[in-house]
Amino acid sequence: MSADLAYSTRRFTFSAAHRYWVEDWSPAQNARVFGRLTVVHGHNYTLDVTIRGPIDPQTGMVIDLGELKRIVGEAVVERFDHADLCADPLFRGRVPTTENLAVVLWELLAPKLGADRLWQVRVWEDPTLYVDYRGP
Amino acid sequence: MSADLAYSTRRFTFSAAHRYWVEDWSPAQNARVFGRLTVVHGHNYTLDVTIRGPIDPQTGMVIDLGELKRIVGEAVVERFDHADLCADPLFRGRVPTTENLAVVLWELLAPKLGADRLWQVRVWEDPTLYVDYRGP
Amino acid sequence: MSADLAYSTRRFTFSAAHRYWVEDWSPAQNARVFGRLTVVHGHNYTLDVTIRGPIDPQTGMVIDLGELKRIVGEAVVERFDHADLCADPLFRGRVPTTENLAVVLWELLAPKLGADRLWQVRVWEDPTLYVDYRGP
Amino acid sequence: MSADLAYSTRRFTFSAAHRYWVEDWSPAQNARVFGRLTVVHGHNYTLDVTIRGPIDPQTGMVIDLGELKRIVGEAVVERFDHADLCADPLFRGRVPTTENLAVVLWELLAPKLGADRLWQVRVWEDPTLYVDYRGP
Amino acid sequence: MSADLAYSTRRFTFSAAHRYWVEDWSPAQNARVFGRLTVVHGHNYTLDVTIRGPIDPQTGMVIDLGELKRIVGEAVVERFDHADLCADPLFRGRVPTTENLAVVLWELLAPKLGADRLWQVRVWEDPTLYVDYRGP
Amino acid sequence: MSADLAYSTRRFTFSAAHRYWVEDWSPAQNARVFGRLTVVHGHNYTLDVTIRGPIDPQTGMVIDLGELKRIVGEAVVERFDHADLCADPLFRGRVPTTENLAVVLWELLAPKLGADRLWQVRVWEDPTLYVDYRGP
Repeated sequence: MSADLAYSTRRFTFSAAHRYWVEDWSPAQNARVFGRLTVVHGHNYTLDVTIRGPIDPQTGMVIDLGELKRIVGEAVVERFDHADLCADPLFRGRVPTTENLAVVLWELLAPKLGADRLWQVRVWEDPTLYVDYRGP
Repeated sequence: MSADLAYSTRRFTFSAAHRYWVEDWSPAQNARVFGRLTVVHGHNYTLDVTIRGPIDPQTGMVIDLGELKRIVGEAVVERFDHADLCADPLFRGRVPTTENLAVVLWELLAPKLGADRLWQVRVWEDPTLYVDYRGP
Repeated sequence: MSADLAYSTRRFTFSAAHRYWVEDWSPAQNARVFGRLTVVHGHNYTLDVTIRGPIDPQTGMVIDLGELKRIVGEAVVERFDHADLCADPLFRGRVPTTENLAVVLWELLAPKLGADRLWQVRVWEDPTLYVDYRGP
Repeated sequence: MSADLAYSTRRFTFSAAHRYWVEDWSPAQNARVFGRLTVVHGHNYTLDVTIRGPIDPQTGMVIDLGELKRIVGEAVVERFDHADLCADPLFRGRVPTTENLAVVLWELLAPKLGADRLWQVRVWEDPTLYVDYRGP
Repeated sequence: MSADLAYSTRRFTFSAAHRYWVEDWSPAQNARVFGRLTVVHGHNYTLDVTIRGPIDPQTGMVIDLGELKRIVGEAVVERFDHADLCADPLFRGRVPTTENLAVVLWELLAPKLGADRLWQVRVWEDPTLYVDYRGP
Repeated sequence: MSADLAYSTRRFTFSAAHRYWVEDWSPAQNARVFGRLTVVHGHNYTLDVTIRGPIDPQTGMVIDLGELKRIVGEAVVERFDHADLCADPLFRGRVPTTENLAVVLWELLAPKLGADRLWQVRVWEDPTLYVDYRGP
């Protein structure tokens, strides 16, 4: 009998600043497309990391949550909590939209968690907006 | 290289009244099936609209959120906020359940957002009940 | 030694319809003052009832929560859940604003809970608006 | 014309105690793997039950919510609310992780709701952790 | 008969950036006292404005919510939403802590709402931290 | 000029088990008064600690939040997170109601934070029930 497959999701939070700006564009074009988003501001981001896998028959777990907490803490929270996204090399040439942030978080976590185990990252910019990304 | 695919979800709210009533049924049958739901009451509805698409390499967006806000505002919020669902022609012959409301919201939004971009509407009647609809 | 004084608050919910309308005013005046609020709509109301009193040295309680639940259930939830506030005699001549609803809920609960024990009613019309009332 | 397919989700809550302990392991091994989780503690669990099915053309419902409430109430809430999960025979030989709790809830609900109608159980242990299970 | 006194609270949100920095201190001293807070980051702020006053016997309102929304929108949301608090002259010489932000918001709102009507501003920096201020 | 007075509140969480039982009573009497609460179960408790004091003119703070976090972490979270309240000596002879838990938390925190600075502890047993305690 094969083990049961389940999806386990753990929520993380971090507070960061950002602004929208395309270097190749003139200030006028940036203002027209992004409006007030061109001004530096910030958010309390919420990150939901979903791991997909069989439930270990002995421990009853899809993943050890202490391990997950440590990995996401080191790779994401320490990097982006109380930080300016625009100052991070990962956002060089990438507008720090919620969509691109989701991609960046996937790129940071997939090598550490395994692209076969990592099912989805969901990033909330605020309680009215979230983006799901499931890998390239 | 193709663009990354992501799902972007924006939350909207509106407050409306409704009651459950099937015109073809007798009052006794309506009461037996729907109970207190036959009396006009109301809810703070929450609508989560999910757009699925490639992330634009330049803007970093699946959809311009200002555009999304304008479309849903005009098609849904202006129509149903501070309104009685039962008085709307779209609910003629349709009991205004959360399920049917989800279908109606899809029908209003799909032509404007594109049925290929609109991935899902999720309607919360209250914090303990929601319905997902992904089109016909 | 006197018993410790504490404030115990229990949350209740009910869904109701209402509209704003002053009978003595013309339709034009109602429309000018209340706008869209003149159209019947509704809300998921949240009611926080706060009881103030000494902690019983034996049971460790300010009030028996089963008793509180029964009293508020009978006096408020059964009356206003799935109901139209405007159809209730208590709102005859009173616009069903959140303020007036708080007063009405106090008037219903104070005789049953005791005006000396009932400390406050807080009524949320939606997650962005609440009114506190502590009696006449 | 076939009926529209929708997913209807209803939220339930219950408060229970548990501890993590593998009988076949020594206390030292349990402590090493589970740490503080070996001490009895508890949670306010939230259960989201999702039913998938066609919308009934007359009632506008995927499932009668009164029926769903009664079934989950009897099978789950009465059994696990104000209970110690470890004392329940269903957790004999199963560590009461959120993953195993999701499987147990599926096993209790699928026979009563129909495995074809029951789409998913989502169990929240707290606001930062949830597990999804969609059956064996 | 005098009118009933009630407290009406309306919630607003805005997203802003900030960092903690005392100009008179050396970078080392700033780092020792404020740590990571010296790096620009941001938050989704929530502002709860409480108005205290008699309930108007005719309209049933403590304050017209449209008027409150307009005043707070113009004085606060337009100024601080998508803005860097540190760039605002009101924070010249004031560390933009939640405490000082509460004072600033009071100073902006009291002249417009009336210090006798404005009862309290509550500012949430995130869902785990808020500050109440009731005037000088 | 005296400093501005403000109230700063920080939220903490811990998960614990408990049951209601008065040693002096017979099992029958315990069952009659407490019902299902006599069975061991548990909750995700939320603790809101409010500090009242002048805003430091230089740091802009009522209290250093790092200090507050350390004190509450050591005195409360380490003691009660993943613990059985009934096994703690502080609950010997005290039914672990939310009221008594609030008193116990006050007694633990007041000596460390100062009874003059500690304004209130608010304890949530679940999202529908909380108790406020402001000292003896």
